[in-house]
Amino acid sequence: MVSYKEAGVDLDKADRSVKLILSVLEKYGVSPKQFGLFGGLYKLPDGSFLIASADGVGTKLKVAFMSGKHDTVGSDLVNHCVNDIFVHGADPLFFLDYIAMGKLDLNVLEEIMEGFARACSNVGCVILGGETAEMPGFYREGEYDLVGFIAGRIEGKIIDGSTIKKGDILIGLSSNGLHTNGYSLARNIIFEKLGLKPDSPLPYNKDLTVADELLKIHREYYTLLKEARGMIKGMAHITGGGIPGNLARIIPAGLKAVIEKNSWEVPEIFRFLVKEGELDDFEAYRAFNMGIGMIVIPEGDNFLDYLRERGERFWVIGRIEEGEGVEIV
Amino acid sequence: MVSYKEAGVDLDKADRSVKLILSVLEKYGVSPKQFGLFGGLYKLPDGSFLIASADGVGTKLKVAFMSGKHDTVGSDLVNHCVNDIFVHGADPLFFLDYIAMGKLDLNVLEEIMEGFARACSNVGCVILGGETAEMPGFYREGEYDLVGFIAGRIEGKIIDGSTIKKGDILIGLSSNGLHTNGYSLARNIIFEKLGLKPDSPLPYNKDLTVADELLKIHREYYTLLKEARGMIKGMAHITGGGIPGNLARIIPAGLKAVIEKNSWEVPEIFRFLVKEGELDDFEAYRAFNMGIGMIVIPEGDNFLDYLRERGERFWVIGRIEEGEGVEIV
Repeated sequence: MVSYKEAGVDLDKADRSVKLILSVLEKYGVSPKQFGLFGGLYKLPDGSFLIASADGVGTKLKVAFMSGKHDTVGSDLVNHCVNDIFVHGADPLFFLDYIAMGKLDLNVLEEIMEGFARACSNVGCVILGGETAEMPGFYREGEYDLVGFIAGRIEGKIIDGSTIKKGDILIGLSSNGLHTNGYSLARNIIFEKLGLKPDSPLPYNKDLTVADELLKIHREYYTLLKEARGMIKGMAHITGGGIPGNLARIIPAGLKAVIEKNSWEVPEIFRFLVKEGELDDFEAYRAFNMGIGMIVIPEGDNFLDYLRERGERFWVIGRIEEGEGVEIV
Repeated sequence: MVSYKEAGVDLDKADRSVKLILSVLEKYGVSPKQFGLFGGLYKLPDGSFLIASADGVGTKLKVAFMSGKHDTVGSDLVNHCVNDIFVHGADPLFFLDYIAMGKLDLNVLEEIMEGFARACSNVGCVILGGETAEMPGFYREGEYDLVGFIAGRIEGKIIDGSTIKKGDILIGLSSNGLHTNGYSLARNIIFEKLGLKPDSPLPYNKDLTVADELLKIHREYYTLLKEARGMIKGMAHITGGGIPGNLARIIPAGLKAVIEKNSWEVPEIFRFLVKEGELDDFEAYRAFNMGIGMIVIPEGDNFLDYLRERGERFWVIGRIEEGEGVEIV
């Protein structure tokens, strides 16, 4: 069995790092009022809220390097950021990017920017600025890191799950593959253990290459759901930490989200990774989204019709019970 | 002569990259309304402006790695960001950080966060969130990259240099060493050419080590100048690109800033780097701040008294004439 720790990522240590960061912020009196949300909230004088979030693409970038395709990872990052602030009800206002390369390659830079700009254009978000850093001796030849910062504004209520009650149902919306998490583990299984190459056909689907599958763009849920904000009690964007790590952020104390893992069709890529990596459920559901990119806890019955009217495929993947945290059964 | 290009940083290519980025943003209709400012402006419904900026620490981080001292670079980044939005008149609202390491080291993480938190506390800025990424295979053992994102708000007028007139004087405020630019060149001269170590005494001052000098924290000018906003027509934060690269951003068309390079005392570190690196003036004044971290074009006569009352050392370093751009004489 390949574990996430063996692949170089220690999720428990990541949890400890969050506690450590919080303690430093408190020591200096610079903590945000709420912590653990997908973005940070800042109240403006007019009573509306700004919300901001920072994110990277993570080691999905390695797949871009290996395959020489750089025009999708920028969109991954924008969409990830947009989802992170939308789950609290925000419209995106502006995005800023950071691109660091060992040696500035203008062709690669242009491809990256295309990805940023296309995704921002899709959601009506301006790219307000950014930093392009040439850092010799930091990044390997042909490699780079990308960071995105987004700010949005919440005009109506803040969606934070606080009105979630026992008996509420959880709706799962499909992901478009791995999105931007679990790549250290996935690359370990696919490239190290199985010895596949980016242009190898997928063993379970000869029409797609490994790179086609692994570079699928992180899905953006703002466009689909922005008109439904009034019908939503809570949303969880399923990224690093998987369903348990992210859904737990919005479940009120005294309640538990029970997820039935057989209630949706896990896409082939995840079944393949679980089988070839000999992953147990605990590992798999923490490392990967397993086919669910967004979980919505609706308010009232109209939300399901809203999704049906838009031809969106969805699953009722669980319910809220008494208890604590997230349970996958 | 060691050139910046030989040290791995190509400033001309950096200029071309800015044009390329702009063309991509325009193609997708996601450009900000104003470009070339130190931060990006976003108008809120109440008429006030948000301003945001993203930055990295650059290869100053290598000095932190070499010397094992990680509690100052976070402050460098916050102060750089604060200055970048303050030059347009903003108060900082919130900061977000991105920390990427090959292997998550909680001790190093804590030191970095101390630097962020201390500097944010100094300017009354909340750390609203951030991302700590463990990226195996990206960063060398013991290395990391840091990115900061700041958002501020401009309640009064936007300070942008637009009212600058012929005859205005330019006030230079002292930097605290290299701040956060020119490090690829400086490291090349100090560590490669001269073979010094972080704990070597400075050849011109045996009381300080190389690391002491190179890790001096980027000075923050907000605290000094925040009460003087009404007396200021324009400010230029002197970072990458030096005085010519940054001052040019705020000089209106038809006017030229003439800087007299003998009008202030260039600190020893810069004279040392110029001599040992055999740098010509063009190279030196583009790579380094040369002792001037902030340039202010005051409105009226009160500003000089304002600085004197606060015991601040300053120099009249130039004047505005007819012409274009920035000239160093």
